[in-house]
Amino acid sequence: MNINTLVEQIKKKKSVLCVGLDTDLDKIPKHLLEEEDPIFAFNKAIIDATHQFAVAYKPNTAFYEAYGLKGWESLEKTINYLNEKHPDVFTIADAKRGDIGNTSSRYAKAFFEDLGFDSVTTAPYMGKDSIEPFLAFEEKFTIMLALTSNPGAFDFQTQQIDGTELYKKVLATSTTWEHSERLMYVVGATKAEFLVNIRQIIPDAFLLVPGVGAQGGSMDEVFKYGMNDQAGLLINSSRGIIYASSSEDFAEAAAAEAERLQKQMASHLEKLG
Amino acid sequence: MNINTLVEQIKKKKSVLCVGLDTDLDKIPKHLLEEEDPIFAFNKAIIDATHQFAVAYKPNTAFYEAYGLKGWESLEKTINYLNEKHPDVFTIADAKRGDIGNTSSRYAKAFFEDLGFDSVTTAPYMGKDSIEPFLAFEEKFTIMLALTSNPGAFDFQTQQIDGTELYKKVLATSTTWEHSERLMYVVGATKAEFLVNIRQIIPDAFLLVPGVGAQGGSMDEVFKYGMNDQAGLLINSSRGIIYASSSEDFAEAAAAEAERLQKQMASHLEKLG
Repeated sequence: MNINTLVEQIKKKKSVLCVGLDTDLDKIPKHLLEEEDPIFAFNKAIIDATHQFAVAYKPNTAFYEAYGLKGWESLEKTINYLNEKHPDVFTIADAKRGDIGNTSSRYAKAFFEDLGFDSVTTAPYMGKDSIEPFLAFEEKFTIMLALTSNPGAFDFQTQQIDGTELYKKVLATSTTWEHSERLMYVVGATKAEFLVNIRQIIPDAFLLVPGVGAQGGSMDEVFKYGMNDQAGLLINSSRGIIYASSSEDFAEAAAAEAERLQKQMASHLEKLG
Repeated sequence: MNINTLVEQIKKKKSVLCVGLDTDLDKIPKHLLEEEDPIFAFNKAIIDATHQFAVAYKPNTAFYEAYGLKGWESLEKTINYLNEKHPDVFTIADAKRGDIGNTSSRYAKAFFEDLGFDSVTTAPYMGKDSIEPFLAFEEKFTIMLALTSNPGAFDFQTQQIDGTELYKKVLATSTTWEHSERLMYVVGATKAEFLVNIRQIIPDAFLLVPGVGAQGGSMDEVFKYGMNDQAGLLINSSRGIIYASSSEDFAEAAAAEAERLQKQMASHLEKLG
């Protein structure tokens, strides 16, 4: 996807909402378990109910891999459905991959070409040659972990490295890589005060912000400190939307929660015009 | 697998060889492409030819994911074949996963329970709560990236953090995590001089050493500075073994290369008794 297409969608829908498809057979409504592919049936219903409020969908690959072949099949059906029925939405494979060059090329091929995702999340620990193979793909985006929203983020990411925190070093270094204009970053919303520092290093990049809602982040702070003139934000909600109800009305409940978040976003997005 | 079973295998076979199954349809012998599942057919032939010289097998998941559903099926067949025919070998899913706690639990379930691997590789960037869900599994091992063998290792891993290099901080911090006795570490063999420092921090842990051979590491240095009284090493070779020949004699050529490496290892392993 071209970045302008994403920005147009954001303006049109007045939303930067990303719906996280962390689909779990133990949590979806019981009546769906009779379906041939309960995971896909659930995802399809969620997508149909929420797409007018959301600009991105993010299946977390762990939830699909946990069901083996059957799960991988549900993931394929989900991305195919998104690409066929809603080609305007931005798709994210939340896979957190990263390996030596020839291996990262394989992952990039798997997610960008074979599955047809617009973007994939990656981990930075192995450095430049583990990420550049992803960046080589035109009109595809690589969303690299920078500052995550979990407690373990403080183990290494916020530690001082050469007088600056590791996550800042990661951000600054990554801007020197080839096709760094295709980078986006994962930035945890529970640390909105860090957004000022982050925007000094990467003013233009899109930030994928998890952790609004269930993980405790404040949406208003994210907009205040993280927004730029293209919005520059994708704010994710997973469980808060997809498990808003565990009954037969789950899709309606998901839509209501997505709409509630979209309305909160709209007020901040007015200024984009 | 119990760690003693691995150590017994090492002593019996006088080998710490791990065979990396980075199976690529563009590189396997052409005649195999007529098989129903060429990837599995190749892996099976390689395993049958090399298992007397190797104590571990390591499919790199990227190579399987790159072929979508069909690739995932080949991975399942490969691990099932290893577990049924060669239950004594140690199996490694080289997946480099890591995510927030409930997601890491999913990956752990996928690789340890559903697929039945003995171990999985993980990335440390997200810290403690991204790794401990893997460590919770009894008689399973988590092989965390510490110092990798690629050029990008110098981007972050060897940078000074609070007066010490990041990879040392990662090693030291990880020893405080619950069930850290189930941790092993990826340590690139191209930096054998670092092994002295590493062994000061984690004297007892097993090290998975890639990069001997194609990536230029020296096996003798790895033994000199990395070996402990349980051997404490798994030395990987992927392309050097599995693509030793691209003709119909590929399995024999793989066996010959595996045997050559095993013989080189045996001289260092004599002292284990």
